[in-house]
Amino acid sequence: MTKVFLKKKIQNRVLLGHPWIFGNEVGQIDGEVNPGDIVDVFTHTGVFVGRGYINPQSQILVRLLTRDRNEQVNDGFFLNRLQKAWDYRKKIGYVENCRLVFGEADELPALVIDKFNDYLVIQTLALGIDRWKPAIVAALEKIFSPKGIYERNDVPVRELEGLPQQKGFLSAPFDTNIILKENGLKFHVDIVNGQKTGYFLDQQDNRRAIQHIVKGANVLEAFCYTGTFSCHAAHYGAKSVLGLDISEHAVATARRNAELNGLQDICQFQAVNAFDQLKQWTKEDKKFDVVILDPPAFTKSRENIQKAITGYKEINLRGMKLLKPGGFLVTASCTNLVDPSMFLETIDMAAKDARKKLRQVTFMTQAQDHPILWNIENTTYLKFLIVEVQ
Amino acid sequence: MTKVFLKKKIQNRVLLGHPWIFGNEVGQIDGEVNPGDIVDVFTHTGVFVGRGYINPQSQILVRLLTRDRNEQVNDGFFLNRLQKAWDYRKKIGYVENCRLVFGEADELPALVIDKFNDYLVIQTLALGIDRWKPAIVAALEKIFSPKGIYERNDVPVRELEGLPQQKGFLSAPFDTNIILKENGLKFHVDIVNGQKTGYFLDQQDNRRAIQHIVKGANVLEAFCYTGTFSCHAAHYGAKSVLGLDISEHAVATARRNAELNGLQDICQFQAVNAFDQLKQWTKEDKKFDVVILDPPAFTKSRENIQKAITGYKEINLRGMKLLKPGGFLVTASCTNLVDPSMFLETIDMAAKDARKKLRQVTFMTQAQDHPILWNIENTTYLKFLIVEVQ
Repeated sequence: MTKVFLKKKIQNRVLLGHPWIFGNEVGQIDGEVNPGDIVDVFTHTGVFVGRGYINPQSQILVRLLTRDRNEQVNDGFFLNRLQKAWDYRKKIGYVENCRLVFGEADELPALVIDKFNDYLVIQTLALGIDRWKPAIVAALEKIFSPKGIYERNDVPVRELEGLPQQKGFLSAPFDTNIILKENGLKFHVDIVNGQKTGYFLDQQDNRRAIQHIVKGANVLEAFCYTGTFSCHAAHYGAKSVLGLDISEHAVATARRNAELNGLQDICQFQAVNAFDQLKQWTKEDKKFDVVILDPPAFTKSRENIQKAITGYKEINLRGMKLLKPGGFLVTASCTNLVDPSMFLETIDMAAKDARKKLRQVTFMTQAQDHPILWNIENTTYLKFLIVEVQ
Repeated sequence: MTKVFLKKKIQNRVLLGHPWIFGNEVGQIDGEVNPGDIVDVFTHTGVFVGRGYINPQSQILVRLLTRDRNEQVNDGFFLNRLQKAWDYRKKIGYVENCRLVFGEADELPALVIDKFNDYLVIQTLALGIDRWKPAIVAALEKIFSPKGIYERNDVPVRELEGLPQQKGFLSAPFDTNIILKENGLKFHVDIVNGQKTGYFLDQQDNRRAIQHIVKGANVLEAFCYTGTFSCHAAHYGAKSVLGLDISEHAVATARRNAELNGLQDICQFQAVNAFDQLKQWTKEDKKFDVVILDPPAFTKSRENIQKAITGYKEINLRGMKLLKPGGFLVTASCTNLVDPSMFLETIDMAAKDARKKLRQVTFMTQAQDHPILWNIENTTYLKFLIVEVQ
């Protein structure tokens, strides 16, 4: 097997548990480098570090799959890892729907698998894991006997790995418009055309966190996508809910979701630019009891962090101004590039500019089926905050 | 009214919303200073800052009650503030039992009121708030018509204010051994002799957070006090629960709590020094599926933070070693002197020393009825963490 030796100076992060090895951290390679192959990694003194897959076309040259020298990477390896990931979700109580595999946090770098009741959606985001798709699919069939498996690899990041964007069935074809149950509600999921894998499971616990504050409230949700927070608000007793999203298709789905739950008389949805609408209504001094902001990632690159923060600050400032005194702001950010303290500082700056006083109700992360590893920063990505605004 | 003028340089914290004014931040005082009196506070240029109570015997010379010049501090003021605090708890869903007033976070510095169903327990921890006890009691009678009100002012911090330690009835006497319901369980509360106000409401949501991980597990709880986490573990399906506490009286109450819930066959309690026992069992290589550590504050002064951290590290390292691979450590710290990042770093250090890998399940704070104000650091005090330990 090809051997990769780390440079003397840059290996501490890797030795402390991070599975990524960047090209500039490698001193020497003994053997052939075939993109996607499994290689062994050693320190510069020859101590075994781990085993993983290599891709010279990627900035991340090697991603480690195991640190156990006796563990071979083969079909059985993937069956074991997937069984372990499933056992963990069952242990922490995420059974019907869950992120079954959360990449690095499950020692399966660049692999994402979401389970929507009897259906599985997978993303293989690096060449070295993409190669093992047949083994992964076989393992999923064995563990779950699912009604269907679908590949949502229509993701630009694959191109950095020299992989094509693609989507399609990995099982016999099935009706990809499914319904999932969450917190006593039902939601339409379009596995083929929905964002990411089709549904954002990462907010499933956070949606429940609005339970008390929306009772009897007039609620505004900006960036409502398919209306899942909006439907939760109505379900938990909101007097009225208004959801805004720029996408006509998302708004149409949001309306269907409200109908599916018999909440169409409480929920209204508008296809508008939320930025513009928040600005306009601030001018008109419109007021709500609860404002929910669950925007898409405002940045996917480090270069644009400052721009993203400006965006978060802008919408949160508007959101605060649209609240009655003592109202609640429910606000989220889903990019790992804005870390939790940066996010809180941004909200604090917005409050100062809006001359509002905040009182924290709760500050949460993504749901527990997306585990956090402290030494792998991109596993901490979702911030979810509720504050009372005075 | 006596006027307190701040020095030019040290007022920014106060202007940004912090209600404490230290003696060395004051430049000039116009008028008499009677300990406990209400005074007006101004900037050095004479701009009104707020109104609060003064005590020259305390390091905190003035604590602000209001920043509204038109708001008078009188009996009606306390009725309004308590009604507002109660309305807030109802809004966020804390009705039966709650921390009704959490001092600074409710704009009532140094006042703590816990509601245990029909009973109220109060602490007035500064002279200026102690004076208003009759007004506070009258307001509580008016809002709640409670079955009883009790004062738990047997707290050393009162002596810094020149106040005696004392406890007793503030209503007609009543049976102070009560039972409260929490998460479907019942617990004995000894209002007179229990720690603090008699019961730790701040962990009420966190106790529910162990729900899934304890199913079928052998659970160890160190520092179990009256066994509330232990009973929750048994209630949620643990196979066995062993609770340790140094206090014979706490252990006796823990046993009564287990019996009260019909969990006496699952829960065992031992009156031992948890530090010693953890150490001993580590040597014996004893193993559990879940270890819960909910120790008392290891420090109450800044001077001892390093000692406290050593203590936290020690017990967490032991806890990790006592876990089977893939077991869960449930660990808390209740002192605001160890901030959240310091706490996580301590757990991380313990893991490195124990050669364990951690995966975060959840990281929480005190329950939402103890709101957090970002600019008042002592409102962020409880850290509650669950990690999987490999």
